[in-house]
Amino acid sequence: MTRDFVIGVDMGGTNLRCAAVSRAGKILLMQTRPANASDSAASVADNIVAGVLSLENSARRLGKTVGIGVAVPGPLNVSTGIVYAAPHVKAWRSFPLRRKLESALGRRVIIENDANAWALGEFWRGAARGRRHVVLLTLGTGVGGALIVDGRLVHGRTGMAAELGHVTVEPNGMPCDCGASGCLEAYASASGMRGLLAKESKSRRTLRSRYLDRQGNFSVRQMTAAARAGDARARRIFAIAGRYLGIAIASFINIFNPEMIVIGGGVGGALRLMRSEMMREVRARAFKDAVAQTRIVRAALGGGAGVIGAAKAALDAIEIKV
Amino acid sequence: MTRDFVIGVDMGGTNLRCAAVSRAGKILLMQTRPANASDSAASVADNIVAGVLSLENSARRLGKTVGIGVAVPGPLNVSTGIVYAAPHVKAWRSFPLRRKLESALGRRVIIENDANAWALGEFWRGAARGRRHVVLLTLGTGVGGALIVDGRLVHGRTGMAAELGHVTVEPNGMPCDCGASGCLEAYASASGMRGLLAKESKSRRTLRSRYLDRQGNFSVRQMTAAARAGDARARRIFAIAGRYLGIAIASFINIFNPEMIVIGGGVGGALRLMRSEMMREVRARAFKDAVAQTRIVRAALGGGAGVIGAAKAALDAIEIKV
Repeated sequence: MTRDFVIGVDMGGTNLRCAAVSRAGKILLMQTRPANASDSAASVADNIVAGVLSLENSARRLGKTVGIGVAVPGPLNVSTGIVYAAPHVKAWRSFPLRRKLESALGRRVIIENDANAWALGEFWRGAARGRRHVVLLTLGTGVGGALIVDGRLVHGRTGMAAELGHVTVEPNGMPCDCGASGCLEAYASASGMRGLLAKESKSRRTLRSRYLDRQGNFSVRQMTAAARAGDARARRIFAIAGRYLGIAIASFINIFNPEMIVIGGGVGGALRLMRSEMMREVRARAFKDAVAQTRIVRAALGGGAGVIGAAKAALDAIEIKV
Repeated sequence: MTRDFVIGVDMGGTNLRCAAVSRAGKILLMQTRPANASDSAASVADNIVAGVLSLENSARRLGKTVGIGVAVPGPLNVSTGIVYAAPHVKAWRSFPLRRKLESALGRRVIIENDANAWALGEFWRGAARGRRHVVLLTLGTGVGGALIVDGRLVHGRTGMAAELGHVTVEPNGMPCDCGASGCLEAYASASGMRGLLAKESKSRRTLRSRYLDRQGNFSVRQMTAAARAGDARARRIFAIAGRYLGIAIASFINIFNPEMIVIGGGVGGALRLMRSEMMREVRARAFKDAVAQTRIVRAALGGGAGVIGAAKAALDAIEIKV
């Protein structure tokens, strides 16, 4: 038996995932290859094309491709298909990605911001299924955000909306990678926690022994393990992250009156370590009636959300246009 | 010649305005009466009914009423017609306003939050005409907000969305009337500026002589006049208000990627006194590409925006339902 499927591609800093996704949102087949994100602008795009073709070749027996959706990091314009700036792909600056992919593949391609694709996945098949008013935050290396308002993803004027990691939570606060200071991302992300740790730790040895992985890089996983084992510094840093996460969430509740806030990403996985500080701020700052309507939950789909959401973006485009 | 009109009602803390508004959004006739906001819950509603009937009586020669829209302060549920809590009408707590008005008038009534009605007015006939992505702030006694996303007003799950005055701009900041601290409203509103002034002024005499009206109440108008005349304290307070307004606007730009930010209200009228501090924060905090797409402008309609927007809400409801 063969059936149609949609190809969802999720381009990360390290890996490129390509999946054949059914119309019902199930991953039928997934392939992962290196993203080669530091190659030239054209090579990184060619690698996506190669990933799509390789997946199609392997998925031939499953059916035929009816759409292709590609999730990429960084702000982009969904109408023009231009990627403004991708944090992991330095060579993409105002890069016409969709045009490149479409001319290489000879077919229509939908591109979407990776946080939006992740959110579409959670909205279609995950934690936010069936909801109409949802704020989604993915706390990873940075903070990604997405907004569902009246059942639809919010793109803003040119696709730059929902940069929820870059709301100010402390005007004179920690420096953020975006150049501003006191953004949510400067606290409730891996890079934020690394900054907080550097500020707290006088001794590099302490830092090394507990919070770094074998390659000597800051590790949220190590940090989480240390906090769970009772390490006071790690617990304090999660408390700070939780406090600022709560300040931001309180503002989002007052702005959106959502049904649900979905939290994903590696740092989001340690939500329990942040929850009490987070809720203290939410209760102190957001309107009580609105807080009572808002469930704050963890993302449900894990790493597959991006390809599922990229496929959904492509499927929506087919269903609207044809 | 007679024609159809819509009745728009704008209920403020002091005045109740009722207007006959044409289908094109022009005010054909307006009447103002005291709001009697401190009366009993039922009396305040009866006063609205009386206002509508009086207007209709005077407007008989103009044509017939095709809809009634009422703007009221405070969060409310547009679906159920219940007003949760109105800051100026203490007696309205979970008050079924729409049902009361409909049974007294024997006709369908649409109710809308006053900030949303004001925003609909500016969107229909004012500064935001023809735009699809707009953030609107009215800086008055408090701060009201409204959001237009993809051309539609955002209500959230139960109509409590767009409480933009209650985003946190300074976690340990000034106390806010809502019970939290460091809200935008605690800086960029008349009540916020009064608080800043009280904190700055050691001497009650100085305060009295320059910033109060004849009744001895804090006056934004006096404060504005003092700042324009070079008064250092007044200028400093506008600078503080402008700074926090800028911090909030930067977050709104990163959240919504809007085309336009519209600023109204009495404090908003002194935008020029806040503009340089405001823009400094916007430029330091919001994404440059998004800032470049966003016009920050003053509201265009003045005091009539509320009745025009209330009429628009009623008109939209007719056009959708009939």
